Amino acid sequence: MITVVIVGTGNVAQNLYYALKEEPQVVIKQVLGRTKSYLSFVNTTIATTSDFEKVENADIYILAISDEAIPSVSNKLKIKDGLIVHTSGGTGMNSLENHQRIGVFYPLQTFTKGKIVSFKNIPMIVEATTEKDYVLLENLGELLSDNVVRISSEKRQKLHVAAVFANNFTNYMYTLAAEVCTEHDLDFDILKPLITETSAKLSELSPEMAQTGPAKRGDQKTLHNHLAILKDKQQREIYTLLSNAIKETHGKKL
Amino acid sequence: MITVVIVGTGNVAQNLYYALKEEPQVVIKQVLGRTKSYLSFVNTTIATTSDFEKVENADIYILAISDEAIPSVSNKLKIKDGLIVHTSGGTGMNSLENHQRIGVFYPLQTFTKGKIVSFKNIPMIVEATTEKDYVLLENLGELLSDNVVRISSEKRQKLHVAAVFANNFTNYMYTLAAEVCTEHDLDFDILKPLITETSAKLSELSPEMAQTGPAKRGDQKTLHNHLAILKDKQQREIYTLLSNAIKETHGKKL
Repeated sequence: MITVVIVGTGNVAQNLYYALKEEPQVVIKQVLGRTKSYLSFVNTTIATTSDFEKVENADIYILAISDEAIPSVSNKLKIKDGLIVHTSGGTGMNSLENHQRIGVFYPLQTFTKGKIVSFKNIPMIVEATTEKDYVLLENLGELLSDNVVRISSEKRQKLHVAAVFANNFTNYMYTLAAEVCTEHDLDFDILKPLITETSAKLSELSPEMAQTGPAKRGDQKTLHNHLAILKDKQQREIYTLLSNAIKETHGKKL
Repeated sequence: MITVVIVGTGNVAQNLYYALKEEPQVVIKQVLGRTKSYLSFVNTTIATTSDFEKVENADIYILAISDEAIPSVSNKLKIKDGLIVHTSGGTGMNSLENHQRIGVFYPLQTFTKGKIVSFKNIPMIVEATTEKDYVLLENLGELLSDNVVRISSEKRQKLHVAAVFANNFTNYMYTLAAEVCTEHDLDFDILKPLITETSAKLSELSPEMAQTGPAKRGDQKTLHNHLAILKDKQQREIYTLLSNAIKETHGKKL
């Protein structure tokens, strides 16, 4: 049996809550959130509080809150014993250093408000300072996910950079595609099967092998035509920089 | 009954071949390819040739070949009657103008060598010069796909720009993520559930709504840390340009 206190009411907190609630080997002792009304997702049989002084005892305290809030919330929490972890990809474990037993419990996924996801395929990145705490986090992680990995803060920060490219910047490419569609009265939905297949391809090919398009082919005529279509300066800059980068990446190998 | 000649042996030609072969209302009269050995995917019951003079009569001639090759192959083909179309997103219909009846039959998808996909969800973009030919292409398209759309060459070129962002540049973001992983001895596979969910999110949210990350939050500290991790000049340039663009896109709305 592992007892847990969840601190936070956002997407990660809610998703962890719904996943942990289903585990017979886990007891959620309490959910703690600054704003009382945001705690309404919690079942009435589970204790909630907005008073940081009134935190219950537990084996693990999970701070599922924004990166910026981690140090201040960590300072406010008065914990007698137990392991305190955060769920952030880009924050060092030492942001919790005012506590004795600290760690990280980072689900490598993007969470959407109101969409409850299964943790089964989500890599759970864990970090701790002692072997005992590593094992405790691994036990909790393995209840949720088939993929629990130990990664240090230093390496996790690099993984976080890669995740920014794979998620934030990829989503921004979708945004630019949608902008071009809107400008020319085209329905963005028409691109969705292409977007789905672009990510699905990675199960068979490395992204380098999967690269196609005018930049990869060195097709200057099409590149010029496309730049003539893009009127927005920033769109043109991004189109040019990425096309040149693709040309270079793939030209080197010719 | 619609009779078809396929010209080409690449991914699009092969995928169209496998899809059309299954349609009882379609007869593939012939597959034409410059290099004989590349025609080996064609069933022995279907005629093949590498001699452009020996093209059979058909209702529709589909040029599933590279953009660059379209004008020269179009010039070489001696067609008595029938509709000739290409399958390119970025090429105008007029590249076929040496023929009488011309059109476009563009499957908006990325095709991978050796991976046979279903056309059912692939948008088929059609263009023709007469209503009769539009209907002929729509009839063929609807045998394969639930989504057949008429789009002019001019508008299709804009759609092609959007597709470059949604596919080519998105795939390049995956490439950069993989590069960062390799540099720091991290397994790129760990990012795949995140990549899958990033595209899956679009079924519920617009990309603008789905945007997350340090640039969206205006989190300068994380942006600086990430730039310190990226040693490659081009990676840093891309990271900076895209972060600034995200800040601007989302800052405007604050």
